Amino acid sequence: MKKYIQEKKTRLNNYIEKELKEYSDDFSRFNNWGYDSFSRIPEFISRGKMIRGALVYLGFEAFGGKDISIADPLAAAIELLHAGFLIHDDIMDRDDLRRGKPAIHVSLRDKFDNSFTDSGKTAENIAICLGNICYFTAFNFINDRRISMLFNREAIITGLGQMDDLYLSSSKEIPDHEKTLNIYRLKTARYTFSLPLKAGAILAGADEKTLKTLNELGIEIGTLFQMRDDELNFYGDADKTGKPAGSDIREGKKTLIYSLLLHHSDQKHAEFINQSLGNQNLNNDDIKKLQEISIDCGAKEKHEKIASEFHLKAIEIINYLDIDENSRTVLKNILNYSYKRGY
Amino acid sequence: MKKYIQEKKTRLNNYIEKELKEYSDDFSRFNNWGYDSFSRIPEFISRGKMIRGALVYLGFEAFGGKDISIADPLAAAIELLHAGFLIHDDIMDRDDLRRGKPAIHVSLRDKFDNSFTDSGKTAENIAICLGNICYFTAFNFINDRRISMLFNREAIITGLGQMDDLYLSSSKEIPDHEKTLNIYRLKTARYTFSLPLKAGAILAGADEKTLKTLNELGIEIGTLFQMRDDELNFYGDADKTGKPAGSDIREGKKTLIYSLLLHHSDQKHAEFINQSLGNQNLNNDDIKKLQEISIDCGAKEKHEKIASEFHLKAIEIINYLDIDENSRTVLKNILNYSYKRGY
Repeated sequence: MKKYIQEKKTRLNNYIEKELKEYSDDFSRFNNWGYDSFSRIPEFISRGKMIRGALVYLGFEAFGGKDISIADPLAAAIELLHAGFLIHDDIMDRDDLRRGKPAIHVSLRDKFDNSFTDSGKTAENIAICLGNICYFTAFNFINDRRISMLFNREAIITGLGQMDDLYLSSSKEIPDHEKTLNIYRLKTARYTFSLPLKAGAILAGADEKTLKTLNELGIEIGTLFQMRDDELNFYGDADKTGKPAGSDIREGKKTLIYSLLLHHSDQKHAEFINQSLGNQNLNNDDIKKLQEISIDCGAKEKHEKIASEFHLKAIEIINYLDIDENSRTVLKNILNYSYKRGY
Repeated sequence: MKKYIQEKKTRLNNYIEKELKEYSDDFSRFNNWGYDSFSRIPEFISRGKMIRGALVYLGFEAFGGKDISIADPLAAAIELLHAGFLIHDDIMDRDDLRRGKPAIHVSLRDKFDNSFTDSGKTAENIAICLGNICYFTAFNFINDRRISMLFNREAIITGLGQMDDLYLSSSKEIPDHEKTLNIYRLKTARYTFSLPLKAGAILAGADEKTLKTLNELGIEIGTLFQMRDDELNFYGDADKTGKPAGSDIREGKKTLIYSLLLHHSDQKHAEFINQSLGNQNLNNDDIKKLQEISIDCGAKEKHEKIASEFHLKAIEIINYLDIDENSRTVLKNILNYSYKRGY
C-alpha cells in the first residue's frame, strides 16, 4: 500500500511542480505574490502524503482507466483543494505547526520586519488569500462537468462539517457519538476518501451504482481513518505521532474517544474528565489516568467496537466491488492502513 | 443606466433565490449549517447593487446574445464570487458593517450566547467557511470550460492584488501612484468590470480580439470606479456615502488620493499629512484641512487628471466597439456613473 501511494506521490509531485511552474511564470507578471504563491503551494503540497491524489489514480485504475496521465489533473485538483483547507484550518485553529514545519500563516511572518504594523494578523490575512488561490487553482484542473459538480458539492459539504465542528468546539455541549461521527463524515471522510475514489472512477467511466457504492466505502474508511487519528493521539507515543499524547484533549477537541470516555465513566471520574478538556496544564500522569479510565469503563472497547464495525462494512463493500484483484488488494491495504496504522 | 442595472438586479435576485432554495433543501439534510448558509448567502447578495451580475447580461446582450436566461447562471456565479470576497474582506479588515448592516462575521455572533467560549473568533472562522462555500457554489454555476478558466484566473489575480494591498497596508511605505493603480486594477477593476463583461461576451460568442478590448475597457472603468470611491470618501459628505468623510484616512488606507497628497504637498505640511494616516482621532477640521491642502498643492487636480485620462480612453474604446447603439449607450452610462456618481 505504501508503495502504491509512494509511487503515485512521486508522479503527482512532478506533475504539480511542472504545472504550477507555469502558473508561477504567468502570475509573477502581475506582482511578486504571483511568484511567492505558486512557489509556496507546491512546496506545501509536497510535504503531505498525497493520499487523496493517490486515491484518484486508484479509483481510475480500479474501474478500467488505462492511461493514468488522464488522471493527473484531477489528482492535482484534489491535493490543491486539500491544501486550501489545511491553510485555512491552521488559521482557524491557531495551529502554528503543520507537517513538522511552520504553518503557512506562520511562515508568512518572515516577510515582515519590525517596521510593519499588525504583522501577525496581516500574515493570517494573506494566508486566507493563499488558501482561496488554492481553491481557484484546483478548479482550473477539472474539465469534466460531472466531476466538477461532484467536487464543488463535496467541498461545500466539507465546509458545512467544518462549521459544525467549530460551533461545537466553542459550545459547552459534549456531543453524543452519532453527532461526532456525522462531523467526521462531513468534514473529513467524504472529501478525503469518497471524493477522490469517485472522481477517479467517473473519469474511467464507472456507472452511477458503482459511484454510490464508492461513496459509502469512502465514508466508512474515512471515518475509520479519523477515529484512528484520535486513538493515536490519545494512546500513542510522541515519537510516532510527532505530537505529545493527549494533545487533542489539551486543545479541547471533542473527539469520539473523549465523548465515549465521558459518557461511559462512572460518577466519581466525571469531574476529572470534564475538567481535563481544554486544560493546557494537563501533565503526562493525567493523560495516563484518562487512558486507564477509558480502559476500565469500557470506552476504549466501545471505540474499537465501532471501528471494527466500520472495518467489517468496508471489507464487505470491497469484496462486493467489481474490480480486478490487484485494485482490490490495494483498497484492502488502504483500509487496513486506516484501521491499524501506527501500531 | 440605473434602470438597466435595476431591471437586471430584479431578474437576478429571483434567479439566485430560486436556485439557492434548492441548495438549501439539498444541504440542510447534512446539518443545520446547510440551511443557515443558503439562507444567509442570497440575503447578503440581495443587499448589493449587483453591478457585476448586470455587466454579465450587458456583455451578453451587446455581443448578440438573445435569450438572456442563458446568462443567468453566470451572472449568479459572479455575484457569488463577489459575496465570498466581501465576507473574507470584512474579516481581514475588521470591518463590522457592510451594506448598512452587520458584516457576516458579526451577524453570526447572534448564534452564540454567554455559555460559548471564544465566540468572536469562532464566528469569524465560520464566516471564512461561508466565504469558501460562496466560491464553491459559484463554480457550480459555470458550465463552459473557457469561461471557467477565465473566472478562475481572474479570481486568482484578485487574490494576488488583495495580498499586495494587505502587505502594503501593514508596511510604512507610501506607494507611488503607479503601484497604487496596479493594486486597483488587480484587486477591483478586473473582477468587477473586465471579468463580467468578458464572460457575458464569451457566452454570446464574441471573438478573442473583442475580449482583449473588453479586458482593457473593464480595467479603465474599474480603476475609475475605485478612484471615484476614494474621492467620495475624501471629499464627500456622510449623508451621501454613509460613511464620515475621511474614514479611509482614519483607517490608514493608502489610496491614490492620499499618495498624491503626500507626494505633491510642500515640506511644511508633510508631517501633518504623514501623521494623519491611520489616526483614528482625526476630527472634521483636520479632514477639512487635508482637503484644502490637496486643492492648494494640486493633488486634487492631478487625481482628476488621471481619472479624466482613464475616462477618455474608455470612451475611445466604447466608440470603437462593434456593438448596437443601445448597448453602447448603456456602457457609456455605466462609465459616466463610475466617473461622476455621488455628485
